[in-house]
Amino acid sequence: MDQPLLGALEAGGTKMVCATGYADGTILESSEIPTLDPGATLEQVVAWFSSHDIQALGIGAFGPTAVDPASPRFGSILETPKTAWRNVDLLGALAQPLGVPCGYDTDVNAACLGEAIFGCAQGMSDVVYLTIGTGIGAGVMVNHQLVHGMMHPEAGHILLTRDPADPIGTESGCPYHASCAEGLIAGPAIKRRWGGKRASELADDPKAMALLAGYLAQALVTYILCYSPKKIIIGGGVADHTPLVALARPRVRELLNGYLVTPEIENIDTYIVNNSLDGRQGILGCLELARRALES
Amino acid sequence: MDQPLLGALEAGGTKMVCATGYADGTILESSEIPTLDPGATLEQVVAWFSSHDIQALGIGAFGPTAVDPASPRFGSILETPKTAWRNVDLLGALAQPLGVPCGYDTDVNAACLGEAIFGCAQGMSDVVYLTIGTGIGAGVMVNHQLVHGMMHPEAGHILLTRDPADPIGTESGCPYHASCAEGLIAGPAIKRRWGGKRASELADDPKAMALLAGYLAQALVTYILCYSPKKIIIGGGVADHTPLVALARPRVRELLNGYLVTPEIENIDTYIVNNSLDGRQGILGCLELARRALES
Repeated sequence: MDQPLLGALEAGGTKMVCATGYADGTILESSEIPTLDPGATLEQVVAWFSSHDIQALGIGAFGPTAVDPASPRFGSILETPKTAWRNVDLLGALAQPLGVPCGYDTDVNAACLGEAIFGCAQGMSDVVYLTIGTGIGAGVMVNHQLVHGMMHPEAGHILLTRDPADPIGTESGCPYHASCAEGLIAGPAIKRRWGGKRASELADDPKAMALLAGYLAQALVTYILCYSPKKIIIGGGVADHTPLVALARPRVRELLNGYLVTPEIENIDTYIVNNSLDGRQGILGCLELARRALES
Repeated sequence: MDQPLLGALEAGGTKMVCATGYADGTILESSEIPTLDPGATLEQVVAWFSSHDIQALGIGAFGPTAVDPASPRFGSILETPKTAWRNVDLLGALAQPLGVPCGYDTDVNAACLGEAIFGCAQGMSDVVYLTIGTGIGAGVMVNHQLVHGMMHPEAGHILLTRDPADPIGTESGCPYHASCAEGLIAGPAIKRRWGGKRASELADDPKAMALLAGYLAQALVTYILCYSPKKIIIGGGVADHTPLVALARPRVRELLNGYLVTPEIENIDTYIVNNSLDGRQGILGCLELARRALES
């Protein structure tokens, strides 16, 4: 019997990645559409998926967004700084014209799911996926289920302690918080400190890397203590193009200071890792969301 | 038909609270046994429950402890500072002589469960229970399930940013971390700063309360961002006998700085609350653990 054709959409703030594939993780085709005006962008997305005979769609959306199916705003983008997208019913705008079952979650929860189903966290019950790029987001799985709660985790905005050697000044890269992880580690903070440079251009600068690794370690320690995950997976451009993950590991141990004695912490090199799916963790998670929507 | 008689044990570092009751939350009898030498203490606990005809036992244990039934150390106390209890097979020492089905979790997860089944978080899917006493511990429910993961949350040890006005000095009340929540807010930190005083004796000291409330707010913001809970419930002596919870609420809002827009944050007085069950949240959670053990 033919496998049902599934659609996967990573709806990001910069681009929409559309793909088709199968439940086993095969990607057949994919296409990128820039995220511009909501109406025109979503029309293009619908047109792309309409031209393929998909039987379900999985959507991983940028946040904040309503991921609780019981919420009257389920599937809508919430109070995002991208004002044109505020209150856009993303799920409705796709599900109605396409007429197929749709799964919906945050982009980072989708990536977490991708790693837990197809990647380096296969079969694990408790997983944190962190992306460090223009922002920081965390997708979290607890007892095999993605975390939503009141809204969804916004663990990129946890408050960190400033390093006295940090040249960033009184403001940070986050408009809301002077000292949150996103405001100190993500792309805008890096540009602000180092004359508009990107993380990849600083990969060989030991001082810059040490500063960022120290902040990342602080954040990781909080995630370890709060979620007690079995693995932490780090993706996103800032982590992908620098040695930050490797540099953060010994700093995590220093900060924990022997408090947690577990095999995972003993083997920290396999506990805190870069993502495993060559950047496809998000779209593969969306494929899994589609599979679940079809089965449910 | 008679309801089955259930046993509930809050196994704390200071005392063992033993109780009998029914699945509906009725407590019939209870007794306290000081936590001293493991052998003698557990013998007394077994004797107490043996003298009642319980059909199942629910245990909420002090940590760190192995709560994963798949672990070879399930039910044992792990690397605790209470060295006599290290590696004690608490669950085995009770389940074997009593010969009844036993449920086992951390004391704080049991209290979280108590609030979610019988208390102010009834029916809620995502709940954080925090206790602030001689230490700080968090019990967490996500998607109606208690969080275990690699071990269990140790969210009392998350790192906070020191208040420059804090008179505590370079060390804190935690032997592991110079600036974790437990080391800055719990009993030992309070005694260290304020000449051996207890929190209750400082309830009317606005400077002391403001310092502690600021730290508590930092921790709460992290829990909100990480767990996205639908309610946060705070118990333990330090919170019970001071206005800390009320004082922390406006500080939480300040730190979030408008970032999260949800009905829960709007109604922060019902979102971050003192415990609801007159100190019985832990033992009632143990009763529920017993009920589940009997049914499983």
